[in-house]
Amino acid sequence: MKSICGVEGVTAWGIKEGKFGLAVIRAEGVAAGVFTTNLMKAPPVKVMEERIRRGTLSAILANSGCANAYTGARGYRDAVEMASIGAETLGVSEDDVGVASTGVIGRYLDLPLIRDQCQRVVPNLARTEEAEVLAERAIMTTDITEKHALVKRETFSVGGITKGSGMIAPNMGTMLAFMYTDADMTAPALREALRTATRRTFNRVVVDGDMSTNDIALCTATGKAGKVDPREFSSALEECCRTLAIKIAEDGEGASKLLEVTVERAPGEEEAATVARTVIASPLVKTAVYGADPNWGRVIAAAGRAGVDFDPDRVNLWMGNGTDSVPLVTRGEIVVDLVRAKALMQGRKVTFTLDLDAGSGRATAWGCDLTERYVEINGKYTT
Amino acid sequence: MKSICGVEGVTAWGIKEGKFGLAVIRAEGVAAGVFTTNLMKAPPVKVMEERIRRGTLSAILANSGCANAYTGARGYRDAVEMASIGAETLGVSEDDVGVASTGVIGRYLDLPLIRDQCQRVVPNLARTEEAEVLAERAIMTTDITEKHALVKRETFSVGGITKGSGMIAPNMGTMLAFMYTDADMTAPALREALRTATRRTFNRVVVDGDMSTNDIALCTATGKAGKVDPREFSSALEECCRTLAIKIAEDGEGASKLLEVTVERAPGEEEAATVARTVIASPLVKTAVYGADPNWGRVIAAAGRAGVDFDPDRVNLWMGNGTDSVPLVTRGEIVVDLVRAKALMQGRKVTFTLDLDAGSGRATAWGCDLTERYVEINGKYTT
Repeated sequence: MKSICGVEGVTAWGIKEGKFGLAVIRAEGVAAGVFTTNLMKAPPVKVMEERIRRGTLSAILANSGCANAYTGARGYRDAVEMASIGAETLGVSEDDVGVASTGVIGRYLDLPLIRDQCQRVVPNLARTEEAEVLAERAIMTTDITEKHALVKRETFSVGGITKGSGMIAPNMGTMLAFMYTDADMTAPALREALRTATRRTFNRVVVDGDMSTNDIALCTATGKAGKVDPREFSSALEECCRTLAIKIAEDGEGASKLLEVTVERAPGEEEAATVARTVIASPLVKTAVYGADPNWGRVIAAAGRAGVDFDPDRVNLWMGNGTDSVPLVTRGEIVVDLVRAKALMQGRKVTFTLDLDAGSGRATAWGCDLTERYVEINGKYTT
Repeated sequence: MKSICGVEGVTAWGIKEGKFGLAVIRAEGVAAGVFTTNLMKAPPVKVMEERIRRGTLSAILANSGCANAYTGARGYRDAVEMASIGAETLGVSEDDVGVASTGVIGRYLDLPLIRDQCQRVVPNLARTEEAEVLAERAIMTTDITEKHALVKRETFSVGGITKGSGMIAPNMGTMLAFMYTDADMTAPALREALRTATRRTFNRVVVDGDMSTNDIALCTATGKAGKVDPREFSSALEECCRTLAIKIAEDGEGASKLLEVTVERAPGEEEAATVARTVIASPLVKTAVYGADPNWGRVIAAAGRAGVDFDPDRVNLWMGNGTDSVPLVTRGEIVVDLVRAKALMQGRKVTFTLDLDAGSGRATAWGCDLTERYVEINGKYTT
């Protein structure tokens, strides 16, 4: 088992037919969610938020191919109907079924298709590796790689799947992330742990700076493993979310390299995160990484416009590939060895560590390079 | 005459040799400037700011090929030396010579080259079309097109040249803009007019969301045409800056289309500008425009994350090509005719007009599409 089916009490299945997929994940338990802050929040997000407010869920239905976003009152009715199709087929209360959608904006759901797919998915619900893989594939859109994570602790597990590779931004992109645990958690403790984990992981991934109308990060706790230490749980959930977040960055639309930026000694953790995200999101940094061009000036210039106060003359900057690293700037002085720096940029991962010498805040953000392929993928999406 | 030499009291010349150019513009007068807010402000910007504070200028030297940015104390001394080379060659006071640099970050100025070029430029200073064209070409970097503007009013003129095509962002990018007028203006009135014009024009151009360390917008008033109505002057300066700003957007690195976004009935002018810039800067909107894909959902999604409050159900959205337009959304309802919309996107210009029905603020922002060529240009810049 590689993700959600590694958690006791969870069954899943999925179908993908052309662009249109449906995943059903069944797990009775305490639930918490984090949702897009985009003003144009899609109807399924509203429905999911309402259901989550009660603090429990029995199952979720997630479809790909149509985001059911910007579809007004009809879109809302359709999202409610989708939940009701799930409830009926599963034989559970409608209030305990959540929904999520991803795909093209401004189109209505094909409810007959969703009903048909749901009726074919539900009888297959299982706790197997095939089940979690099919559920994951059913929600993928422009994703190339499957994204699974499973964190095992002595007495409990946390597993998750996610989809998302474009429109990924601070405060999340077109990202659906479904995490499950067999730990026995109260709703407030689960919510708090999910918020913190999301802030430190999914919210620190930037592919293109766009924020989706449909983002959802969800965690359901089945309680099968009994009570656990809340701090140990938070750390396990964060690890699970971090693994998924990095997989999203690696699979950024058109990406050829993973970009990891760590900011150290910032005034505070959020300031460190702001600088890290600004560097990660810079198209000039992203294209330089793509071209294996050690243009550290672009890193410095991006950091300088992040709105965080520090002294440029005290800054240290290193570049690496995850194994080796080379200094680029030491206390404001350029020390870069261009040949070595360029050699370090040839692999699949490029890291920058920026020490601001301005406090004790530390944060890491993840992203990817910007390639011709990103333009190609996004220039012809609707048609 | 097409720009600065259309203004009485201005002479210019320039030399471009490979990547390295030098422009000298001579004009005695009252001067005002607007500068980058990037923390990593380059030494020449600091020198220019200090000189401008006195309120007058006799000449400026602007070089391309080396930004003299992130070069510390030596960079500052070099920028002062560059001004002093100009003063000596021109026979004017050193305090009245401003400097500007654009090009690669983190390299020192080649002062012997600048001295040599200056000595060859100064004897040629003239008030001809050739002179202004050579001055413009001398400061171009990745620019493809020359950017001139000349606004003539009954009693005075305002002319300007600019360079910039990447790292163009809200609050300006690697942009140098030199405006001249023969109107007789006080320093405070000139400063106020330049600030307003910059806010409404250069600050509303976004190519890639990056902000440079070297931005300068400068206006010198020679006074040769006598006193003018300050409001008429402000309007002429704004028109001149707007023409230059649109030329920057059209020449965005790799751009194939100009993108113009107007936001109407926002809570205020700055809120309208924020929404317009957010849409203009969205990589998903930019790639959709490139692919002539009428993916209006991306426009709506970008507007929704701009941090401005409005009711999605009251929004109207049109798309056009500058001549014709077609409604996409009417009071929150999708009305798009995809075939007609796609046809309208085939030209060199795409416009979106977004009516928020949330107040009386109005603003326009300019940008361009995102193409494979942008990635290519920026993936291999240093080398």
